[in-house]
Amino acid sequence: MNIMRVVRDLVTTHRVSGLHARQLRVLEDAKGNIEVAVDAVGARAGDFVITIAYSSARIATGDPRVTTDLTIGGIIDDWNEDKFTGRIPAAS
Amino acid sequence: MNIMRVVRDLVTTHRVSGLHARQLRVLEDAKGNIEVAVDAVGARAGDFVITIAYSSARIATGDPRVTTDLTIGGIIDDWNEDKFTGRIPAAS
Amino acid sequence: MNIMRVVRDLVTTHRVSGLHARQLRVLEDAKGNIEVAVDAVGARAGDFVITIAYSSARIATGDPRVTTDLTIGGIIDDWNEDKFTGRIPAAS
Amino acid sequence: MNIMRVVRDLVTTHRVSGLHARQLRVLEDAKGNIEVAVDAVGARAGDFVITIAYSSARIATGDPRVTTDLTIGGIIDDWNEDKFTGRIPAAS
Amino acid sequence: MNIMRVVRDLVTTHRVSGLHARQLRVLEDAKGNIEVAVDAVGARAGDFVITIAYSSARIATGDPRVTTDLTIGGIIDDWNEDKFTGRIPAAS
Repeated sequence: MNIMRVVRDLVTTHRVSGLHARQLRVLEDAKGNIEVAVDAVGARAGDFVITIAYSSARIATGDPRVTTDLTIGGIIDDWNEDKFTGRIPAAS
Repeated sequence: MNIMRVVRDLVTTHRVSGLHARQLRVLEDAKGNIEVAVDAVGARAGDFVITIAYSSARIATGDPRVTTDLTIGGIIDDWNEDKFTGRIPAAS
Repeated sequence: MNIMRVVRDLVTTHRVSGLHARQLRVLEDAKGNIEVAVDAVGARAGDFVITIAYSSARIATGDPRVTTDLTIGGIIDDWNEDKFTGRIPAAS
Repeated sequence: MNIMRVVRDLVTTHRVSGLHARQLRVLEDAKGNIEVAVDAVGARAGDFVITIAYSSARIATGDPRVTTDLTIGGIIDDWNEDKFTGRIPAAS
Repeated sequence: MNIMRVVRDLVTTHRVSGLHARQLRVLEDAKGNIEVAVDAVGARAGDFVITIAYSSARIATGDPRVTTDLTIGGIIDDWNEDKFTGRIPAAS
């Protein structure tokens, strides 16, 4: 799983039925890469979240028919910018 | 899921039966990488779309026997070049 | 799915039963990365092909017991070197 | 599977039910990339571990309903910093 | 599938039951990246092998309950250092 930050919502009027009525969020990782995820926890812009990928992303939505490959699976309580940018001190 | 732009159609007369009669599109991501996807929404060249990968790509086509690993799952309403090239302002 | 070029055949006398009697090809992508795929369409050295990855690779062989993670799924009719090296003009 | 080092625990009060009551660890690979995994073996900060990804990550937890895409599958007995940073001598 | 070279065995006394009694090998790819695989063919240090990833890795072991994401699926008969380092001549 990865740690990403919620940037904004994504609006796609025209989408496949497997994503119908699901909240989509634009996320950014520590390197500035952009991805799109189904939100299963109610995250808000600015939140640091963990993302679940591959086939587990479908199950994590609560309905395995949801055709996502990335789902927000949790909101991190105590993350911050320093950690996000990779400046995690080595374990001692 | 990723955000990509439709470049053109792809013609492959000789292909496996699992891709028979499916529309294939050449897509480009923000870094200029090229990928090929089955189109499940009717996207046109120039559209910004979200792509669904892995096993979810099969389900997103509406027929899990379609042997794709990438499917266009939605057309984005309000994306533009600035966002595509990674110049998304950080959430405040 | 990705676009790759067939370089040559691969000979592995000693292999798992799930790859028994399957044609293996060495492929090269636009960046020079080398991968190995099961050939389901009869591609020849020099052909530009589309490759199907992950669990879809098994199904694309026509027998889901084939233990591949990459399968050649089609031969591209009209690809060329310029397109392969990423010099695809942007859609207008 | 990859070799990573455990950095610390991750606290996410608000998470999907598929991760309920599972220990999450923040891991770092040899290049400094950060990932999050479910811990199935009881690793501690500083341990070098092997990580199992994709659908196998669910099965490795002992309960395939756990919605992870990365699980700590073993603690390495004899790894060290030199090996971790890629200075493995070539096989002779 | 990828082409990698076997570096050495990996010892993990403490591991999940899904990897119990399986031979684990440390592998290196052409760029020096290190990965760990279950060995299903009896490869030795120095051998060039093909590796099978994702869900196919489980099936390739001969027992889909083995919780690996990478399995050695064959030993290459005629590979060498020049090919490994990407100096494969283009197909003519």
